[in-house]
Amino acid sequence: MLKTNGYAAMSATTPPEPFAFERREPGEHDVLIEILFCGVCHSDIHQARGEWNNSTFPMVPGHEIVGRVARVGAAVTKFREGDMAGVGCFVDSCRVCDNCREGLEQYCEGHTAATYNGTEMDEKTPTYGGYSTQIVVDENYTLRIPAGLDPAGAAPLLCAGITTYSPLRHFNVREGQRVGVVGLGGLGHMGVKLAASMGADVTVFSTSPSKEGDARQLGAHHFVVTREPESLAPLANKFDLILDTVSAPHDVNLYLNLLRRDGVMVLVGVPEKPVEVQAFSVISNRRRFAGSSIGGIRETQEMLDYCAERRITSDVEVIPIQRIEEAYERTVKADVRYRFVIDIDSLRRGQ
Amino acid sequence: MLKTNGYAAMSATTPPEPFAFERREPGEHDVLIEILFCGVCHSDIHQARGEWNNSTFPMVPGHEIVGRVARVGAAVTKFREGDMAGVGCFVDSCRVCDNCREGLEQYCEGHTAATYNGTEMDEKTPTYGGYSTQIVVDENYTLRIPAGLDPAGAAPLLCAGITTYSPLRHFNVREGQRVGVVGLGGLGHMGVKLAASMGADVTVFSTSPSKEGDARQLGAHHFVVTREPESLAPLANKFDLILDTVSAPHDVNLYLNLLRRDGVMVLVGVPEKPVEVQAFSVISNRRRFAGSSIGGIRETQEMLDYCAERRITSDVEVIPIQRIEEAYERTVKADVRYRFVIDIDSLRRGQ
Repeated sequence: MLKTNGYAAMSATTPPEPFAFERREPGEHDVLIEILFCGVCHSDIHQARGEWNNSTFPMVPGHEIVGRVARVGAAVTKFREGDMAGVGCFVDSCRVCDNCREGLEQYCEGHTAATYNGTEMDEKTPTYGGYSTQIVVDENYTLRIPAGLDPAGAAPLLCAGITTYSPLRHFNVREGQRVGVVGLGGLGHMGVKLAASMGADVTVFSTSPSKEGDARQLGAHHFVVTREPESLAPLANKFDLILDTVSAPHDVNLYLNLLRRDGVMVLVGVPEKPVEVQAFSVISNRRRFAGSSIGGIRETQEMLDYCAERRITSDVEVIPIQRIEEAYERTVKADVRYRFVIDIDSLRRGQ
Repeated sequence: MLKTNGYAAMSATTPPEPFAFERREPGEHDVLIEILFCGVCHSDIHQARGEWNNSTFPMVPGHEIVGRVARVGAAVTKFREGDMAGVGCFVDSCRVCDNCREGLEQYCEGHTAATYNGTEMDEKTPTYGGYSTQIVVDENYTLRIPAGLDPAGAAPLLCAGITTYSPLRHFNVREGQRVGVVGLGGLGHMGVKLAASMGADVTVFSTSPSKEGDARQLGAHHFVVTREPESLAPLANKFDLILDTVSAPHDVNLYLNLLRRDGVMVLVGVPEKPVEVQAFSVISNRRRFAGSSIGGIRETQEMLDYCAERRITSDVEVIPIQRIEEAYERTVKADVRYRFVIDIDSLRRGQ
């Protein structure tokens, strides 16, 4: 077994703290990755704090992982020692259901091994995430990080990036379409960059007038302050797709009414309470209110390659792991532009 | 002007009563239709009783109209005197917006002339519906009723039929798919007949165990009593499309969770209060919650031809117009299998 250092939440009410644990020795299909950077996703906080009622402790969070391959199993063909590699939100899945066979493992009908706060395929061994020095993952659930992608800025692509890329692709966003992005946080800022890169005319809807400059710099063509609902009226029936990245309570009908015929609003944030949809918001214009969850391995690789070609990464603030609780507090207050990423070397140095 | 007799609600609190009014003389593009039958849609009741806060009185309801062409304007090419003709939920639209040009007039971006409780294209002259002896409609907004369709049973096709046919077609229901129909009323019973005719494996979800026999006779293959939520558990992730015809408050998440990946739930009923959608109900399996509104003229004609070929009509209870208030009461109580249709001859005889 491989002795590994990490940071773990030991309970829902204590901040992450140093935690030593063991990883399995790499099997013949596994790669061992020395972790360099790990993004801090809002879902890390929800789960570390037990807010989704699904938490198992100790919990080593982190599913936006970038590192260097340190060793490969005998049967591994896709990676070599020294390669840059990434790990996203899951490290295995059933592989035999229709969704897995179609490369949409995120919708696996069997057991999925979440990268942390989950279990391996034995449904017993707990999984530990990227707030740690190394991780062992089957090569088929490991991503290539193309040369030219800054590794810190690439880490959030593994969750925030694919979560926004996948619905933009699935619903076929293209040149000249009007795309809205509700909320300019970790997900939203990636949504803006990606939608703009696909040629869409992008509007950011935000409650913070102060974010207009950022929005435009990220690639948005328009900025609407949603505290002034009258500013939405002229936009009715104009949008092809609206990406809703907001987890706080908000009125989705305001945005549904901006969709043109057959337009789609895609929820990628996870509001705690149910979202209230007025019947006429969807019946008018045959609109759709859809959800989307991260992406499969194939599409995640496609997204990474796409981002490398276009030099798209996340805007990040790199922190040492010792400041994780402060990062959690600031993330909760949306005081980050736009993603904290842990420099895992700080964990090695801190030992 | 053409003296016309009808039944009108004179206020939101009085039952429909005899009402004499005038129709325009047919213009060169108009057809004059002697009305034979008019269906009683639940929306007639909502509007006659002012429940949608959009009512103008006097109101002559009725938008499921079948009759015989009595006269045609000089430029009319699609109809001749003696033809069977139908009129649905609208009698004109802007004709120039993208949606009108695409034959999706129900989503017209300009003014639509609703068949009743609306205004003509001048946005002033009130429109009066099918609870009347005759109606004058532009030939382009008039449907052909194919020979072989029983005229009383065909009347509800103009609203209940097209409202269910259109989303089944739009979302491409086909042989072997699993389709659910929530609610077995005027809309639901047409949804069952149509989905079954398209080769789908149809499940009816109903709160009334007593409707199982009817559901099967209409073509349903399965019947689930939704008062027993545990009966839904084995159906999770199985359905391609679920047609939600219920206007009463109900938990849509129960049904969303039955959709397989990329499945769609289509709301065609109009619940008064917002529908509460849990984020994970749509994020899981990338599900969609959509709405759909009636259908365009082209698709309505396609539906009528489709129904004629397959001998599909609505199951109706024909009543004289003098019993309209009783029909309203029974419709509100869902005590009709499955649509009241007014025999307009009763109005002529009653004069």
